[in-house]
Amino acid sequence: MERKYNFSAGPGTIPVEVLEEAQREFLVYREAGASVIEISHRSPEYTAIAESARSSLRSLLGLSEDWHILFLQGGASMQFYQIPLNFLREDQSADYLVTGAWSKKAVTEAKRFGRANTAASGADVDFKAIPDPTTWDLTANAAYVHYTSNNTIFGTQYPSEPVTEAPLVCDASSDFLCRPFNVDGHGLIYAGAQKNIGPSGVTVVLIHDDFFRTRKDDIPTMLDYGTHVEKLFNTPPVFAVYLVEKVLRWLKNLGGLEAMENRNVAKADVLYERIDRTDFYRGTADRDSRSLMNVTFRLESEELEVEFIAEAKRNRLLALKGHRSVGGARASIYNACTLEAVDALVSFMDEFEKEKG
Amino acid sequence: MERKYNFSAGPGTIPVEVLEEAQREFLVYREAGASVIEISHRSPEYTAIAESARSSLRSLLGLSEDWHILFLQGGASMQFYQIPLNFLREDQSADYLVTGAWSKKAVTEAKRFGRANTAASGADVDFKAIPDPTTWDLTANAAYVHYTSNNTIFGTQYPSEPVTEAPLVCDASSDFLCRPFNVDGHGLIYAGAQKNIGPSGVTVVLIHDDFFRTRKDDIPTMLDYGTHVEKLFNTPPVFAVYLVEKVLRWLKNLGGLEAMENRNVAKADVLYERIDRTDFYRGTADRDSRSLMNVTFRLESEELEVEFIAEAKRNRLLALKGHRSVGGARASIYNACTLEAVDALVSFMDEFEKEKG
Repeated sequence: MERKYNFSAGPGTIPVEVLEEAQREFLVYREAGASVIEISHRSPEYTAIAESARSSLRSLLGLSEDWHILFLQGGASMQFYQIPLNFLREDQSADYLVTGAWSKKAVTEAKRFGRANTAASGADVDFKAIPDPTTWDLTANAAYVHYTSNNTIFGTQYPSEPVTEAPLVCDASSDFLCRPFNVDGHGLIYAGAQKNIGPSGVTVVLIHDDFFRTRKDDIPTMLDYGTHVEKLFNTPPVFAVYLVEKVLRWLKNLGGLEAMENRNVAKADVLYERIDRTDFYRGTADRDSRSLMNVTFRLESEELEVEFIAEAKRNRLLALKGHRSVGGARASIYNACTLEAVDALVSFMDEFEKEKG
Repeated sequence: MERKYNFSAGPGTIPVEVLEEAQREFLVYREAGASVIEISHRSPEYTAIAESARSSLRSLLGLSEDWHILFLQGGASMQFYQIPLNFLREDQSADYLVTGAWSKKAVTEAKRFGRANTAASGADVDFKAIPDPTTWDLTANAAYVHYTSNNTIFGTQYPSEPVTEAPLVCDASSDFLCRPFNVDGHGLIYAGAQKNIGPSGVTVVLIHDDFFRTRKDDIPTMLDYGTHVEKLFNTPPVFAVYLVEKVLRWLKNLGGLEAMENRNVAKADVLYERIDRTDFYRGTADRDSRSLMNVTFRLESEELEVEFIAEAKRNRLLALKGHRSVGGARASIYNACTLEAVDALVSFMDEFEKEKG
């Protein structure tokens, strides 16, 4: 049983050092006398884990004490609903920048509450590019502007954080902590953990207190951010938070977000360079919008793509199939993916082209 | 680092065989080439895990194909809201049997939708007994009757499933699969996994198709049971479901729910017998309502209780403190708690009484 090179789009690969540490202490967590999954979420041990995870997030992103840090359940999909439920009044607009499947889903849920305005959409170019900011049709006095910083399915990513008058709300699920991030101007940032910072089952939600205070009254208990800001209301997903804490520590020890960016840029450069070198592989995203995290490409035919993915798997390169809605190939090279893995993929791509090209 | 006897009320103890198996395959899951937490939730591996968990539930509870089996996030607390959101219309009543803190919370969320009628309440006897069915004030044509089969905080449990005209909705979080359970008459049964069947982060929801079909239209996507009945909509809490699958298999291999009941009755008998033997320990629940899962008791003074709990911890007996809202001592002896653990606790109780009595 050996570990292979894993390019899964999510749940994605996790640093092997983190897995090994978790494995070692899986039966007995430190002095607890029990596994970390068997202890109370109100125990000093879990409290320390959650606090350490929060403290790492504050230090990595430079978050002041004005930011609330929550570990919620339900994934980004639940946030699509919970955000307008808390922050969009009937007589208000919220602007949505639609850059793919996930932002479209976010708009759908927001329409239940107020005017959810599609201020920009990449639909007319099949989402292969992030719409140019000069074309955005933003609303005056919008409650917020929602964007998806990276689009897993289409392999696109905002080159930098947007700048808007209204508070930004960012779905950062698939590129969270992949590089330095300017939180200024943001009211809320959320990320399902299962791509860049841990396993599935927990969603990190960061809310600036100024934005938090604009939320509506009389929200159902579990869906009211106030419930979770105030206290640990019910049992959190302990094991998921525990692993997130370890991944964040790993990231800090690597040197934080700048070091991570260097590493991610190096990986992406190698891979895009390989794609661009010949016409055998064709990148699907516009160069200016290319993602550091999800590298999407096509081959000449669907038959050849199927062969490529299957042959890669036989060569210990896992999960290179594109999303079922768009086809093609996709290599997700999240934070925990190593340069070694990317090099192995590039070598295989060379071989495959030599054989089939 | 040794494992101690763990009486945590939740997250609770997990069979050590299950933990050991999960530890062994933590870095590489079978042929997957990656940890189970690093693989796609649409992979054949995860699909097989979820199917096996469903199949175990069907076989343990004798569920026909008319039952939908969902693995959701958000805990029982989210179900308190999601159930009336889906099933309680404005012009309808739902009956709630209030037997403790959790059922009270369930009523609060239901009041947002229709008439949430408290058909019975144990409040006047400080929840030390399950109200007698002959005293229940049920509503004609109620959408459903909600009850909490076991009350973790007060140490009470329904002696058997209620019988009502309206469909039953059961919060079985703290005694799920502790003994044979008659699903007839139920429309929906839900249970946070973290007490009897796994770690925190997943809630099992069983819905009978007849009841499912009575749900309202136009429910927000993630909160609509229909979304999850139809397909795997978004990333599930993979690791939690994976462990639940193992615990269910463990339970089947033990002999199923009848064998489990025998084991649970044996443990509870030993412990209640010890409590009743002298006046030093005083059980807090009425005998007819005593829980097989959470054994709650008091000592003569709060000081003595503090000493008891601390001294127990020094003797490798963990988490015996009662819930912060009621005080006293509580031994949670869920399915995975062994008779050996209960025997160790009883011996300690004998010693402690000898010393302090």
